[in-house]
Amino acid sequence: MRPLTIDRLNPAIRNVEYAVRGELAIKAEAHREKLKEPDHGLPFDKVISSNIGNPQQRGLDQPPITFVRQVAALMEWPALAELAPNVFPEDVVARARELLHEAGSIGAYSHSMGVPFIRKNVAKFIERRDGFPSDPNHIFLTTGASSGVSLLLSMLLTGPKSGILIPIPQYPLYTATIAAFHGNGLPYFLDESAEWATSPNDIAHAVAKADKDGIEAKALVVINPGNPTGGVLDRNTMEHIVRLCEEHSLVLLADEVYQENLHRRETHPFISFKKVVRELNSPVPLISFHSISKGVMGECGRRGGYFEVTNVSDPVTAEMYKMVSVGLCPPLSGQIAVDCMVRPPVEGEPSYPLWKKETEATHAALAARTKLMAQRLGALPGASCVDSPGALYLYPRLELPQKAVEAARAAGKEPDAFYALQLLDETGICVVPGSGFGQKEGEAHYRLTCLCPGVDEYVGALENFHLGFMKRYGGL
Amino acid sequence: MRPLTIDRLNPAIRNVEYAVRGELAIKAEAHREKLKEPDHGLPFDKVISSNIGNPQQRGLDQPPITFVRQVAALMEWPALAELAPNVFPEDVVARARELLHEAGSIGAYSHSMGVPFIRKNVAKFIERRDGFPSDPNHIFLTTGASSGVSLLLSMLLTGPKSGILIPIPQYPLYTATIAAFHGNGLPYFLDESAEWATSPNDIAHAVAKADKDGIEAKALVVINPGNPTGGVLDRNTMEHIVRLCEEHSLVLLADEVYQENLHRRETHPFISFKKVVRELNSPVPLISFHSISKGVMGECGRRGGYFEVTNVSDPVTAEMYKMVSVGLCPPLSGQIAVDCMVRPPVEGEPSYPLWKKETEATHAALAARTKLMAQRLGALPGASCVDSPGALYLYPRLELPQKAVEAARAAGKEPDAFYALQLLDETGICVVPGSGFGQKEGEAHYRLTCLCPGVDEYVGALENFHLGFMKRYGGL
Repeated sequence: MRPLTIDRLNPAIRNVEYAVRGELAIKAEAHREKLKEPDHGLPFDKVISSNIGNPQQRGLDQPPITFVRQVAALMEWPALAELAPNVFPEDVVARARELLHEAGSIGAYSHSMGVPFIRKNVAKFIERRDGFPSDPNHIFLTTGASSGVSLLLSMLLTGPKSGILIPIPQYPLYTATIAAFHGNGLPYFLDESAEWATSPNDIAHAVAKADKDGIEAKALVVINPGNPTGGVLDRNTMEHIVRLCEEHSLVLLADEVYQENLHRRETHPFISFKKVVRELNSPVPLISFHSISKGVMGECGRRGGYFEVTNVSDPVTAEMYKMVSVGLCPPLSGQIAVDCMVRPPVEGEPSYPLWKKETEATHAALAARTKLMAQRLGALPGASCVDSPGALYLYPRLELPQKAVEAARAAGKEPDAFYALQLLDETGICVVPGSGFGQKEGEAHYRLTCLCPGVDEYVGALENFHLGFMKRYGGL
Repeated sequence: MRPLTIDRLNPAIRNVEYAVRGELAIKAEAHREKLKEPDHGLPFDKVISSNIGNPQQRGLDQPPITFVRQVAALMEWPALAELAPNVFPEDVVARARELLHEAGSIGAYSHSMGVPFIRKNVAKFIERRDGFPSDPNHIFLTTGASSGVSLLLSMLLTGPKSGILIPIPQYPLYTATIAAFHGNGLPYFLDESAEWATSPNDIAHAVAKADKDGIEAKALVVINPGNPTGGVLDRNTMEHIVRLCEEHSLVLLADEVYQENLHRRETHPFISFKKVVRELNSPVPLISFHSISKGVMGECGRRGGYFEVTNVSDPVTAEMYKMVSVGLCPPLSGQIAVDCMVRPPVEGEPSYPLWKKETEATHAALAARTKLMAQRLGALPGASCVDSPGALYLYPRLELPQKAVEAARAAGKEPDAFYALQLLDETGICVVPGSGFGQKEGEAHYRLTCLCPGVDEYVGALENFHLGFMKRYGGL
C-alpha cells in the first residue's frame, strides 16, 4: 500500500493559499489553548483575533440583533410561542409564524436556491434599494457569500488559459478559489494614495496583459466597499467599470457584502452595481453578492447570504441551479437571518425601538473605532493608514527598517508576516500580513479589524509593540 | 459584448447531472405551485416528494427530536433560560449553557474544522461505537455530508486520468462531483439478486479495467447502509474491501450517513469501516462520513455532519484544514445538532423519556413502512423489490412492457424516467428514476423514500398507477 502523501493530491489544491486562517491564525489558536494553563508564560492574558471579521467572537462580543435571535428561537421550537406567551414581542411571533408557514420546518431541506418566500423578500429589498425590478428567480440564497463566489468561479473558469481579474489587495477567498479551479488570478492594483481607488485604466491594462499572455479574462471581481481596503467606489468609476466589462465581455462579480458598513455616508455612499448596470441599460452579466455575516448583524456562524444574477440567460441560470442542487440547500438558519436582514422591523412595530438602538449603536461604535484607529496607527513612525470609509477593516502600511527586512528574509518570512508574528507573540493580537492579500513588490501592510471593544487598550498595545519593533530593528 | 452563453462556461460543469433534484423535482415544484390555484385541473390534491430523504418536509412532517430544538432555541436566545424559567428541562439548560461556554455565540465563525469541544464529543461517540481511539484533530465538522464528500473528491482527483470507484446504483452526489472535478467515475455493480451485495471481485475488475484504460483509481466509495439500495454490508465483505484498498493503494471513502437507519438490527447490524480497519490493523487511508440529516433526527435543513480521517498523514490533514478554512466554518446550527446526535440524553436525565419515545417511534415507523412497501410494491406484476434492511429508501425494479420502452424512446426519455413522469402527473408522487443512480443496460428502477406517513393511501396510489401504466402499454 502506497501511503497517501501530499504529492498524490490534486496539485491545484496544493497551490491554494488562504492567509486569513493561515499560520498566524493557527498560532493564535495555540496561544489561546496555552493561556488556559496556570503558568502559561505568555506576556498577555488574552488573544484578540483581529485577523477575521467575526464580530460576535468571544472577546469582541458584538451583541447580536435581538430581533433575529428571537425569530430564530421561535423557528427552532415553535411551541415556545404558547409555552412562554409574554416573552416574545408580537411582531416576532407573527414573523416566525409566517416564516414557518412559508418555509416549513427549519429541519427540512428547502428549495436549492432557498425558500421562495425569502427570495421574494430579497427581491423587494433590492427593488427598494435600487429602484429597479428584481426577480426572485434570479436570486440564490447561499451558505455565506463564500459559497456563492466559489460556485461562480468554478463555473466561469475553463482551465489554465482562463483568468479572473482581481483587485490587489484582495480578499484571499478569490485567489484561493481561482487556484483550486486551475485558473489564473489577473491582478489590478488599487491606488493607496487615493483612498484605495479603483482605476478602470489599470483594469484595462490587466486585460491587455492577460491577452498577451494567452489568458482569457472571464470575469472582473470588484469588492465594494473594499476588503481589506475599506474603499468605497464612486459612481463615475462604477460607470467606467461597467463599460469596460462591456468592451471586454467580462462577467462582473460584485462583492457587496459590506454595503451596510459605511462610516461616512454623506461623502461615501454605497451604490450597487445593479443600479448602475440598469441605469446605463447595460447588457453586462452581473452577479452581486451579499451576506448576513457583515453589516450590523454579524451573524457569521449561521452561514447565510445571497447573490442576484442580472443579464444572465435562463440556460446559464439553470446550470447554476443544477450545481447548487448537488449541495441540496443553504442552511435554514442562515436563510431566516437573510429574511430578517432584508425585512427588519419598521417604525410602529414593537421590535423597532430596540432594533434601531442596537443597529445604531453598532454602526456608531464601528465608525468611531475606525476613525480613531486610523489616526493613531497612521501617526506612528514608519506607518501610514488610509481612514477607511467602509467595511470592517484598516489596512495600515508599514515602512519597515532594512534590518527588519533582512531579519525576516533570514527567517524565511515576508517582512510583514515577520512583523505580525512578533505582534502576536508579544501582545496576543492576531492580524493578517499584507502578503496574504497581495501588494506591490517591496511593500508591507497588515489588515486588522475595527471590531475590538476596548479600543484604547487595544490601540495602545499596537502602538507599544510598533515602537518597540522599530527600535529593535534600528528604525527609531 | 458577447453574451454569457452556456458554451462559455466550464465544460466540466455542463457534464454534471443530479437527478435527485432534476427534471422530476422541478416538475413537482411546478405542480405544487399549480395546486394553489382554485381550478388547478390536476388529478391529485398534494405533491409528495418521495424523491429526497427529507423527513421533516411538509406533507411528511416527521417530528423533530424535541431535545435538539430546545437546545438550539436556547443557543439562539440564551436569555430565554431566565425569561421562561420553567419551560426548558434542566438538562437542556445545562447543555445549552455548556455549549455556549465552549462554542461561544452561534453567530460567530467557529474553528474551520468545527468547535473543538464538539469534535471531542464526536471522538468519544466514535470510541464508544467502535472500541478504538478517535482523535478530535482528525474530525472535521461539515455543512452536511455532501460538502465533505465534495472536498475529498476535489482533493483526490488529479485530472482526466484519475478516477473514483463508485457503486452502481449510487447516490448521484458522487457522479456529479466527480464530473465537476474533471475525474472519472469507475463503476462497480451491486448485486440485486443478493440484497444488493457488494462484490470485492467486481471492484477488483473495475480497478483492472481502469488500469487498462490508463485511468488511476484514487479512491473507493462505499455507501453503507446503501443509497439507493438500503443494503447493509456484512463484516466479511468489509474485510475484503479493506484488503482490496491496501492492494490497490485506494483511499476508502465510507459514506455511513445511514448508520442509525437499521430495520433489522439482529441480522443486519451496522459495522463501521473504522472498526474493521483498526481490527485488521490496516494502513488504508479511510474517510468516514456521518450526518445529522438522516438517522432519526432528520435535521436536513441545518446542514450538519462530520467526517473522520484515519491513517491520513498530518500534512494531508493540514491540506484539508486549509481548504475548509477558505469556506470559514460549517454552520453552527448544524454543529450544535451534531453535538446532540453524538451526546443524546441518557437514562436518568429529564429529557431522556421523551427522547426515547420520539426516537423509537421514528425507528419503528420507518421499519414498518419499509417492510410493508417492499412487500406490496414488489408483489406488483412487472415489479420486484429488495426489502431494504437499512437507510430510508426502496429501489424497486420494473420490467416494463416493450410498448412502454418504445414510447419512452420516442419521447426521448429513459423508460424509468418516462414511468416516473407519468407517476408524478397522475398521482403527485415524485420519485427518482433508476437512470439517475445508474443501473445495468436495459434495466429500469426507481427510488422512493419510506418516509410518507399515510402509507396505505400512498402505496395504494402507487399500485393503482402501476397497474394502469402496465395496462396502458400492454403489460397486463
